[in-house]
Amino acid sequence: MSKPSTQVIAIGNAIVDVMAPCDDALIERFGMTRGGMTLVDTERAHELYQAMGPAREISGGSAANTLAGLAALGGRCAFIGQVADDQLGEVFAHDIRAGGISFATPARAGDPPTARCLIFVTPDGQRTMNTFLGASQYLPPAALDEAAIGDAEVLYLEGYLWDPEEPRAAMRRAIAAARGAGRKVAFTLSDAFVIDRHGDDFRAMIAAGEIDILFANHVELAALTGRDDFHDGIAALQDQVPLLVVTRSEQGAVAATGGQLYEVPAEPVARVVDTTGAGDLFAAGFLHGHVNGRPVSECLTLGAICAAEIISHYGARPEADLKELVAQRLG
Amino acid sequence: MSKPSTQVIAIGNAIVDVMAPCDDALIERFGMTRGGMTLVDTERAHELYQAMGPAREISGGSAANTLAGLAALGGRCAFIGQVADDQLGEVFAHDIRAGGISFATPARAGDPPTARCLIFVTPDGQRTMNTFLGASQYLPPAALDEAAIGDAEVLYLEGYLWDPEEPRAAMRRAIAAARGAGRKVAFTLSDAFVIDRHGDDFRAMIAAGEIDILFANHVELAALTGRDDFHDGIAALQDQVPLLVVTRSEQGAVAATGGQLYEVPAEPVARVVDTTGAGDLFAAGFLHGHVNGRPVSECLTLGAICAAEIISHYGARPEADLKELVAQRLG
Repeated sequence: MSKPSTQVIAIGNAIVDVMAPCDDALIERFGMTRGGMTLVDTERAHELYQAMGPAREISGGSAANTLAGLAALGGRCAFIGQVADDQLGEVFAHDIRAGGISFATPARAGDPPTARCLIFVTPDGQRTMNTFLGASQYLPPAALDEAAIGDAEVLYLEGYLWDPEEPRAAMRRAIAAARGAGRKVAFTLSDAFVIDRHGDDFRAMIAAGEIDILFANHVELAALTGRDDFHDGIAALQDQVPLLVVTRSEQGAVAATGGQLYEVPAEPVARVVDTTGAGDLFAAGFLHGHVNGRPVSECLTLGAICAAEIISHYGARPEADLKELVAQRLG
Repeated sequence: MSKPSTQVIAIGNAIVDVMAPCDDALIERFGMTRGGMTLVDTERAHELYQAMGPAREISGGSAANTLAGLAALGGRCAFIGQVADDQLGEVFAHDIRAGGISFATPARAGDPPTARCLIFVTPDGQRTMNTFLGASQYLPPAALDEAAIGDAEVLYLEGYLWDPEEPRAAMRRAIAAARGAGRKVAFTLSDAFVIDRHGDDFRAMIAAGEIDILFANHVELAALTGRDDFHDGIAALQDQVPLLVVTRSEQGAVAATGGQLYEVPAEPVARVVDTTGAGDLFAAGFLHGHVNGRPVSECLTLGAICAAEIISHYGARPEADLKELVAQRLG
């Protein structure tokens, strides 16, 4: 097995975030799931956009955000995801490539347009997401570059993409390609709603040993294991995945591997502006440590540093120099 | 003459800003005019976008930014400007309407696309702008709503739009409509390059008494008057316009009216992040005071407060609650 030239290749939704501050009353008025992610159709997206204040557009997408963090830390990364042949598609493609990430999935002609996520940020910094998947849900299995997947140390998959049919098929093929080449598969559960719909798939994959690194937050852990108690949830899962990483918002994060538990507190943040991308950037920091052979406790700290950066400003792509932040914090 | 229902109606470029931080070397390498605004064609826009890092998109356009500030302060405003029937056009239209500004110019079908401005922000917070005018330069005189112009207390015009032919004709018609209805005409000189090309037009309009309020920065004042010394420039112009307002970056601003000079220092800013929109928001604060009958010195302070807010973050649209900022500062 030759040394992989890519560290992490990811498959994820190719989304542009459209974000604006809002008050709590607006979340209530439109019956949004506060703090959650909801898929919306064209009509609902239009209705919510009408209600949204002046916004800003910043490339997003969970796995794409993770790669943006990894690349900013110096990682060699590649992304697979579907944009449409339109202006927001150009924006997404520009931003990911400008971040130093290889991105070769051809844009899809015609309707629907590139995916967008309408993100309402309440005064406490919490984000409530409404995703119009558009072109993103039509990622065809043919878009997979199996040679590229075989050539990456880690294949990173976003649970969100398990929901639409074509990308799900693509991801199953990608897992087979990665495992066939002897690579690791990392998976993030993304959101409790995905587990509600596809938990059986995930539990089966985990039981079959197809997932090497599993990322979840505490809510997703509970949804997957059916255990409300955090430590019960960890206990139920930790023997089934070689490396389990669970984030707990302001309570920090935990990793379980080799029968051991590792914990890290959250990094201090002067002001939580917008929590969008906190989990994505935690995964970026953690994976950066992992592919560079750092000890698990340091991987957790790297995750916490990156998450703290992302919640201190609008948008889920890093603004500060992550390399420098890490150097300052870890020396 | 009935009481106008709109306070300020503006004609300006309808632009989405595409902004990213960059180092000084990039400005040099591409021979950009540091701190200035340069019009670019499709090819140059493509070349510069390729060189740009991951960016964010925020609605812009000089006069549109001014209205966004005015509306945030509680003003009743309307905007006239040309977008294309595309995604960036939707973004622009959404943001301006979501800010509470009336905007009725129909989107233009087909090519060229909506205008965008590629803004490179150096570590000192200075912005270097490269504008692809796209659809914006095709604002037809027919797009003018002369009844709406006659119904606004102030018609505010952006010098940038004097450059392309169709909007120039539209602006001449708008000035005639406003003057015919007995309204005031405010004009911002926008950039020294516009004065290089159209200074004779501007000087003739000023001499003919067509401009009631003239906004300029110190560089534009020098270009228009041919006087390098700031006070010589003021002296040369102040008898020709009823109200002359000149900004001087970190040296504050000056207004000349009725033979008197009024000065205000710049408001303190913790960190200058991005100077994009400083002049636009100064004009917003000043005009807000003016249409509400505040004394000139207070209009200047209002301008300085709004300018300080806008340079403390990325983008030329206000993020903080301007009303609250003003209330805190002026009580």
